[in-house]
Amino acid sequence: MMKNAFNINEYIDGILSSNITYVSKAITLVESTKHEHQEQAQQIINAIIKHSGSSFRLGITGVPGVGKSTFIESFGLEVINRGHKLAVLAIDPSSQLSKGSILGDKTRMEQLSIHPKAFIRPSPSSGSLGGVARKTKESIIICEAAGYDYVFIETVGVGQSETAVHQLTDFFLLLMLAGAGDELQGIKRGIMEMADGMVITKADGTNTDKAKMARGEYARALHLFPPTESNWIPEVLTCSSTENKGIKEVYDMIDKYKRHTIANHFFETKRANQTKQWLHQTINDTLIERFYANPIIKEEILKIEKQLEQNLINPYQAAMDLFKKMT
Amino acid sequence: MMKNAFNINEYIDGILSSNITYVSKAITLVESTKHEHQEQAQQIINAIIKHSGSSFRLGITGVPGVGKSTFIESFGLEVINRGHKLAVLAIDPSSQLSKGSILGDKTRMEQLSIHPKAFIRPSPSSGSLGGVARKTKESIIICEAAGYDYVFIETVGVGQSETAVHQLTDFFLLLMLAGAGDELQGIKRGIMEMADGMVITKADGTNTDKAKMARGEYARALHLFPPTESNWIPEVLTCSSTENKGIKEVYDMIDKYKRHTIANHFFETKRANQTKQWLHQTINDTLIERFYANPIIKEEILKIEKQLEQNLINPYQAAMDLFKKMT
Repeated sequence: MMKNAFNINEYIDGILSSNITYVSKAITLVESTKHEHQEQAQQIINAIIKHSGSSFRLGITGVPGVGKSTFIESFGLEVINRGHKLAVLAIDPSSQLSKGSILGDKTRMEQLSIHPKAFIRPSPSSGSLGGVARKTKESIIICEAAGYDYVFIETVGVGQSETAVHQLTDFFLLLMLAGAGDELQGIKRGIMEMADGMVITKADGTNTDKAKMARGEYARALHLFPPTESNWIPEVLTCSSTENKGIKEVYDMIDKYKRHTIANHFFETKRANQTKQWLHQTINDTLIERFYANPIIKEEILKIEKQLEQNLINPYQAAMDLFKKMT
Repeated sequence: MMKNAFNINEYIDGILSSNITYVSKAITLVESTKHEHQEQAQQIINAIIKHSGSSFRLGITGVPGVGKSTFIESFGLEVINRGHKLAVLAIDPSSQLSKGSILGDKTRMEQLSIHPKAFIRPSPSSGSLGGVARKTKESIIICEAAGYDYVFIETVGVGQSETAVHQLTDFFLLLMLAGAGDELQGIKRGIMEMADGMVITKADGTNTDKAKMARGEYARALHLFPPTESNWIPEVLTCSSTENKGIKEVYDMIDKYKRHTIANHFFETKRANQTKQWLHQTINDTLIERFYANPIIKEEILKIEKQLEQNLINPYQAAMDLFKKMT
C-alpha cells in the first residue's frame, strides 16, 4: 500500500522543513494499524515532539447540515489572511460510512484545499475512540512540528468524540443552526456546556433575523451556565460563510479568548492538565482493553449480565468474584 | 466499636421486616472498612437483593445555602402524605469537614427525622468516589428491601459525586437560588444538563418575583438543550419550603416523569443500563486502583510526569513503556 521509501531521518527532516509530502506520509504511518508502521511512527513522534505545542488548537463541531465545510473554508482563509499556517484534521469515529462525505467536504473547501498555507486531512474514522483520539493527538504533533500554528480539529457533534476533542484543544467552537428546533439540532447533551464559543451559521437572506434571535437566546442560556474554569463567558456570534459575514468576528472572539487565557495562565495550565490526562487515559484504556480481551472474561461477563438482568446478584460482588477467578 | 451481636440471618430478617435498627446497622456494616464487616455486608446484600429495586430513586442536589434540608423536610413530608415510606441518604465525599453539617441538617429536619415512615441517614463522607457510590448503592438496596419505596440521595452539587448519583437515580433534581448570580450558584458545569427537573427555592416574601423570573429564564435555557434520552423536557418550578408553597407541584412533576418514562419503557431501560454500568465501573475502577497501588508504578509515574512537563516525551509512548516494564 505505502512505499517505505523513506527512512526515519528523512521523515523527521521532511516534517521539520514543512515538506507536505512527509507530513502527510507521517500521518499515514500514525494511522496505520501495522506494527512496523506504528514503531516508525513512535520514533518520529519522539524525535519531533519537542518542536510541537506552539499552535492554537481549535475544536470545531456541529451536526451534518450546519455548514461545517463552508465555515471552515471561509474561516480558514481568514486565519491564513491573518498570517497563520493552517492544518485541518477531520475526525468522525462514529461512522465509517461518512468517509465519502469527508472527502466530499475536502473538495467543497475549494480555495483552502489548494492554498499553499493550508493542509487538510481527513483522519481515520475507524478504531476505538481512544485510538482515534491518540492518532489525532499525534497528527497534531506532526502538524505543529511542521510549522502549522493553527490546527482545526473537526468532529460531527453527535458522537462521543467531542469529549476527546475537547481534551485535545484550546478552544471548543460549536456551530448551530437557527430555528432548526431541538430535534433537528441533534447535538448530544453535554456538548453545549463544553463550548467556549458558539456560532449560528447561515445567517443570510431570510434567515438573518432568525439567526439574530437564536443568538440572543443562546447567549442568555450560556450566561445561566456556571462560569468556566477559565473565567471566560462563552460568546455567541452569527455568521454567513457564503456572504463572508461575521467571519472576522469569530477570529477576534477566539483571539480574545487566547489573550484572556494566556494572561490568567489558564492556557498553560489546561495544556499541562491535558498532557497528564492523556497519560492516565492511555494507561486506563490499556488496562481495560487488555482485561476484556481475555476470552474467559468475555464469557464470564455474559453470564454475569444475564444474572444482573434478573436482579439476582450484586454488581459489585459479581465484579469482585470475577477478579478472584482471575488470580 | 460496633457490637457483632447479630448474625447474618438476624440482619436479613430484620431488614425484610422493616426493623429500623437492623437497617441502620446493616448500612453501618456496608460503610465499614473492616474486612469482616465487608464480608458480612456482602452476604446480607446477596440475600436481600432480589427484594430491592421497587423504590423511586430521587437524586437531589444544590449548593450549600440553597435550602436543601428545609426542602427535604417539607418535600419528604409530602411524599409520606402521598402514602410512601421514605429513606433519605446524604452523601458528600468532597469534604470530611461537613460531617457536622450533615448531622446539623438532620436536626433541622425536625418532623421528618422523627416520623415513623422516614429514615434519614448521613452516608460516609470519606473514601474514594467509587467507594462512596458503591456504599450508597448498597444502602439503597437495604432501604428498598426494608420497604422504603421512595429514596432520596442528597449531594452538595459542587463535586464529582453528582455524576455518580445520576448513575444511581431515576430522577435528578437540581435546587437553585434565584438571582444569586452565576458565581454564587457554585454548581459545577455539566450538572445543569443532567437535571430532569429544577426547583428555584426560597420563592417567598420579597424573593417571589425574582424566583418567578429565574424560573422563566431557566425554563427557556433548558428548552434550548438537546432533548434527553427519555424524551422528557426538564421542567422548572419554584417553591417555598417555609411557606409550604409549590411542594405538591414538585411531587406531581416527578410523578408525571415516572409515568412518562414507565410508559415509554425508558424507566426499565435506564435501570438495566445503570446495573450494567455499575458492573463495568467496578471492574474498571478496580483495575485502575490496583495498577496505581503498585509502588514501582507510583515512582515511574512521577518521573514520567516530570518529562511530560518539559514536552520531552509522548504521553502515549510513555504509557506503553510503563506497561513493558511491568511485564
